[in-house]
Amino acid sequence: MTTAAPEPEGNRPPPARRRPGGRTARIRTQVLDAVLAELGERGYDGLTMEAVAARAGVHRATVYRRWGDVGGLLADVLDAAGDDDWQPPDTGSLEGDLTALNQEIQDAMTAQPPIMASLIAASFRSEKAADAQQRLWEDRYARCEITVGRAVRRGELPPHTDARRLLIAATAPLYHQLVLLRTPADPHLPGRAARTAALAAAAGAFAGPSRVGGV
Amino acid sequence: MTTAAPEPEGNRPPPARRRPGGRTARIRTQVLDAVLAELGERGYDGLTMEAVAARAGVHRATVYRRWGDVGGLLADVLDAAGDDDWQPPDTGSLEGDLTALNQEIQDAMTAQPPIMASLIAASFRSEKAADAQQRLWEDRYARCEITVGRAVRRGELPPHTDARRLLIAATAPLYHQLVLLRTPADPHLPGRAARTAALAAAAGAFAGPSRVGGV
Repeated sequence: MTTAAPEPEGNRPPPARRRPGGRTARIRTQVLDAVLAELGERGYDGLTMEAVAARAGVHRATVYRRWGDVGGLLADVLDAAGDDDWQPPDTGSLEGDLTALNQEIQDAMTAQPPIMASLIAASFRSEKAADAQQRLWEDRYARCEITVGRAVRRGELPPHTDARRLLIAATAPLYHQLVLLRTPADPHLPGRAARTAALAAAAGAFAGPSRVGGV
Repeated sequence: MTTAAPEPEGNRPPPARRRPGGRTARIRTQVLDAVLAELGERGYDGLTMEAVAARAGVHRATVYRRWGDVGGLLADVLDAAGDDDWQPPDTGSLEGDLTALNQEIQDAMTAQPPIMASLIAASFRSEKAADAQQRLWEDRYARCEITVGRAVRRGELPPHTDARRLLIAATAPLYHQLVLLRTPADPHLPGRAARTAALAAAAGAFAGPSRVGGV
């Protein structure tokens, strides 16, 4: 679950989407790639509309007209990141699925350049980026409901397990350690956080009717 | 566990510490109170050395000499927040203790003015603040080890339960929801996250020899 930013190439629409007449789409791709590159090199403080336009080879006025400001650019990067075919891992067990998911998150959070970490940091500077970051996370949680559904069908979980609460419990320790406590990546962390959530889930911690927005 | 910032008054040394000859300490108190007030009113972007000095009634040169920059001020606010007598709640059960702890965190995170939330946001802008934030969190985790020790003695947990991992599992969902997902405070969240961690702990999720820095 590369919840904030998949690898930069993940933001590039695959060739099939570059339809004839797709100049608008092509400009978007160029600009968003430039945002990721600038963010990776300079972080939020070095990210300017001018630098993005220059790097993308797109007229500055176009960038201003279409994205408004740096927050608009970041929000569109995040929205584009959610416009992919990502599906959660399917390993055959709940603990395996959650471990693989956590491994993806840890890999993305510790990748160089630190695109995902920079996007999360930027979400504290821009309301637009924060809103887009939340949309992306909620989209990822929704896509991961299938993970919980499969575990229920395998008899690993009670039927009315709240997928969102389970997913937050499984992934939150990674964000807490990597984003807030800023501890170095720990190879045991993805599996341990997954196992903790799976044990709690099997003990009924997330049982009960699912509530919208519930935790 | 008001891990980032207790109520502003928590940063004011109690009268007993205001020893005669404590002009330095008095200035520190005035300046740190001013930082909290400015941060609460204006957030990081509005926080300046000049405004803090003016509000504290302290000469600007003194503030620059002693704290260097805004990051230095924030770091000292966080260090001062850790210089208190805080002890974790003692309710008689692990789940009760973790629920009470989570309630303290949720109350602090959603307090107005949003001092704690602003300090966490500021830690993405200043290395000094980030380092101090981490020191404060680690101090709080260390103080909470007693919570796990009591649960072990009551027979609620296996003897070699890793306190830090348990505490992170119990509290991380709150930070994830309130800081990163920015969902509104949910009155069920403190208890649910506590129960999840307690169930996982009872199932042995955090058993094993404690490792320094381990998760």
